[in-house]
Parts: sequence; C-alpha cells; structure tokens
Amino acid sequence: MIIVKIGGGSSLNLTGIAADLAAIEGPVVVVHGANALRAELAGKLGLQLQRVVSASGVESVLADTEAIELMMMAYAGARNKRLVEVLQQHGVNAIGLSGLDGRIVEARRNPGIRARSDGKLKLVRDLSGKPTRINRPLLQALLDLDLVPVLTVPLIDEQGVAVSSENDDLVALLQAELGVSVVVQLIEAAGLLRDPGRPTSFIPRLTAEQLQQRLAETSGRMKRKLMAIARMLESGVSRVVIGDGRLPHPLVAAIDGCGTVIG
Amino acid sequence: MIIVKIGGGSSLNLTGIAADLAAIEGPVVVVHGANALRAELAGKLGLQLQRVVSASGVESVLADTEAIELMMMAYAGARNKRLVEVLQQHGVNAIGLSGLDGRIVEARRNPGIRARSDGKLKLVRDLSGKPTRINRPLLQALLDLDLVPVLTVPLIDEQGVAVSSENDDLVALLQAELGVSVVVQLIEAAGLLRDPGRPTSFIPRLTAEQLQQRLAETSGRMKRKLMAIARMLESGVSRVVIGDGRLPHPLVAAIDGCGTVIG
Repeated sequence: MIIVKIGGGSSLNLTGIAADLAAIEGPVVVVHGANALRAELAGKLGLQLQRVVSASGVESVLADTEAIELMMMAYAGARNKRLVEVLQQHGVNAIGLSGLDGRIVEARRNPGIRARSDGKLKLVRDLSGKPTRINRPLLQALLDLDLVPVLTVPLIDEQGVAVSSENDDLVALLQAELGVSVVVQLIEAAGLLRDPGRPTSFIPRLTAEQLQQRLAETSGRMKRKLMAIARMLESGVSRVVIGDGRLPHPLVAAIDGCGTVIG
Repeated sequence: MIIVKIGGGSSLNLTGIAADLAAIEGPVVVVHGANALRAELAGKLGLQLQRVVSASGVESVLADTEAIELMMMAYAGARNKRLVEVLQQHGVNAIGLSGLDGRIVEARRNPGIRARSDGKLKLVRDLSGKPTRINRPLLQALLDLDLVPVLTVPLIDEQGVAVSSENDDLVALLQAELGVSVVVQLIEAAGLLRDPGRPTSFIPRLTAEQLQQRLAETSGRMKRKLMAIARMLESGVSRVVIGDGRLPHPLVAAIDGCGTVIG
C-alpha cells in the first residue's frame, strides 16, 4: 500500500496525478489539501481568515465556525469532489471523505493554543484537533471493494464536532496504523529546499540521521512537517518522497526517486 | 429500510431530524438538497445562476461548470458535512457521499433541454443527467457497517463527469433498487398544498388514484415531483409521506402520518 499526499496548491497537475494513480497496482490512500482554493474562496467572499501565532512561533489559521464552514466548502466540497471526478475519469474508483464521514478519522480537540497577541501570551481555543484514530473496519471495507479513499479535513472530535487539523499529522497516523512502507507527498516545488526562496537549494536525499539534524536547525511550520516525517520513520516507513506535483507524471517521478527521498 | 429525503430549505429542523433518526431502528438512507445554501452562496459570490425553461414549462438551473462547482461547495460540501456532523452528534454514524464517490449514483447525461429563449425553442446542453444506477455492493457494504449513507448531488455520468440531477429522481431510483416500503420527504410546509400560496389548502391524504388525477391537473416542477412519487407507488412503495421538516420532531411526526400520506 502507498499513501499519496497531494498539496493544496493551485498549480498541481491533478490530471497527471490521476493518470499515474490509475497505473499503480495495489491499494492506495490519498490525503489532500486545498489551501489555494480556500484562500481564493475566502477572498471572493470577503472573509478574513484569522491567524494565530503560537508561543513556539508557528502560524496557523484560527479555526472558528466560519473557517470550518469554508473548509467544508473548499476542502470537503469543491477540491475533494473535483479530485474524485478526475480520478474517476481515469478509471480510479475514488471515494472522497472528510474525517466526519463514518468517523473515518477522529481527532482529539486541542486544549488551546498559547498564542501571542500584542506581545502577550494568551490561551486561544478553537475548532482544531490532532488526529488520533482511524475507523479501520470502514477503511478496510472500502479497500476490499477496490476503492481509493480520498481523505481530507475537517476531522471529527470526541463530541462529534468538525475540527480542522494538519494533513501531515493525518498522513503520519495513517502510515503508522496501516503499516505503510511508502509515502509520497506532492507539492509545488522540486522537493525540500534548504532555503525556501531558493529552488537551487533542493535537497535530493536525507537519511534518518540527517533528518534529525535538520529538525534541530528548523523551526515553525517546516519543523512540524519534518517531525511528522520523523515519526513515520520510527513507525517503520521505508521511504518518504517529497516530489514535484507540477510535473507531467508527478507520482511516477516521485516513486522513481525524483524529489527529496527521506529514509 | 426507510429513505428520508431532506429538502434544501433554510428553516428545516436538522437537529430534530437527527434526534429522530437516532431513534429509528433498521437501515436508513438519507438524500438531501441545499437550495437555500446554494442561493445564499451564489449571492455572496455575486454569481447569477442561469435558468432555463424547458418546452414543457419547467424551470431549472442551467448546470454549467460554475454551477457544478457551486453545487460541490454547497451540496456536497457545507450542507452535506453539517448534516453528517449533527447526525454524528446524535450518535448516528452518517457517511456523506456525492454520487461521484465510489460511483455510488451514476446518471445518464441529458441529451439537451429544449428550452425557450426569446420565444424560440433551442437545444441547450448542460451538465445534468438522470440517475440510472446505484453501486449496490458499496451501498450494501456501508449498511452492513451500520452506517447511514447521506447522499447528495452531483452525480457521475458515463464519462466520469459530475452532473446535477433532481433529488426526486434519485429517491425514486433508490426506492425501486432497494425495494424500500416507506419514503419520507421533509419540506418547508405542512405537506402537499392544493394551492402553493395557501397553507390551508393542505392535502392530508392521496390514494394512488387521486395522485393520478392530480398529475393530470398539475404542471411544471410539481408535476415532476408527483411523477417520481407515482413511479415509487408502481415500484411497490407502501407509503410516501410528505411531512413538515420544521416541526420539533419532523421524522417521528411524518412516520406517524402527520403530513400528506400518499399510497
């Protein structure tokens, strides 16, 4: 089995990814974002997404009721269904689900973010959580029917409330629960960059040791992403490839080792 | 098994419907609309939904690419996921799916609408279709896991393209395919009205014969709705109840015969 995480950028080649997925044998689980679409929709609706910066310096979108509604429209709605549509057109029997559906991904509600506001720290509670549990019988039933689950946020918390979450954490949970050996992440860059602004700083290869080293040198959102990858290496993944989702055949290229190969 | 169709109005009591669904024993399939939400979203986005009037006088929304995108956001996105959320909060393990997902509802693309434009008839082709096939193995697998499928548009056509469709036709197909004996439709009125503008013209009871009589006297959208009900009576449904979705316990009331009972 492989897990394919598709980023939320607007320039990803979804048709190419669908064609590649159609050529893969064996079970696949897809996880996707919709950042660009959400930003576009928020802009058109004149909504200002509230952002919070945690004590550790990580910025994230504050998940209030309006943000969850927008997430339902952009992630679970348009992006999820367009992705399912293009997969179906390539003969892949995709089934798009948010974590709410059949409680396929449950989350523990975040107790609150220690956020900086006007130089002071205060506890901000929002509708966000960390993925904790997969509905294995449901996921297995879908895979037994040769379906390709296409998962996205929101997830569902202990009280049945829709919550936002980080897709990196969802991918790490799926990998550990399903014992997956190969994880591919498709983004809008050639792979990991040493310097986000400089495409030539591309990192072709990272061993587990080198990943630990980079973790120590990194902060913010990138640190969270690398930590999720480090957890997968501990859970027995053999390779994580971060590949360029804009290529003509993004998934085939990444599986062939084109991108940042970690592990 | 019962099928519950939940209208797309903004004043339906979704919490009451969820509480009622939690109390029902045996399998349930839900089909829902999202007309009010779609209109609200279109308004906020400044989109003008194109309408076509067929040769027979029935007005419908022209399903162009933009309308399908809006449908994905409003129907398969926000309304579907909010409905799943409120059901989950009442202990009902709901799973929200559009027809695209796992090809659970396939449609035959409409060849075109003979539409009136400036007094002339012309053939307008859009992204709409008629539901023709249910993915039975998938639906059965979900019911076997004690899930409540919550279905909505868009559906998927022969080429894997997302298409809009009438929920009344979807309910009729499900009823026939699954051999369902009770169908409940929850709307924003006490039931069928003889005169849409007059709540006192409420019709408490219609036999199959009286339905045929009304069919002959009706036109437009209402005729299409009644035709779908007539098809269900031919397929062996014992009762169709059109009940008031705004009541404290809409589903319990409808099952108890409060509303228009047909059959």
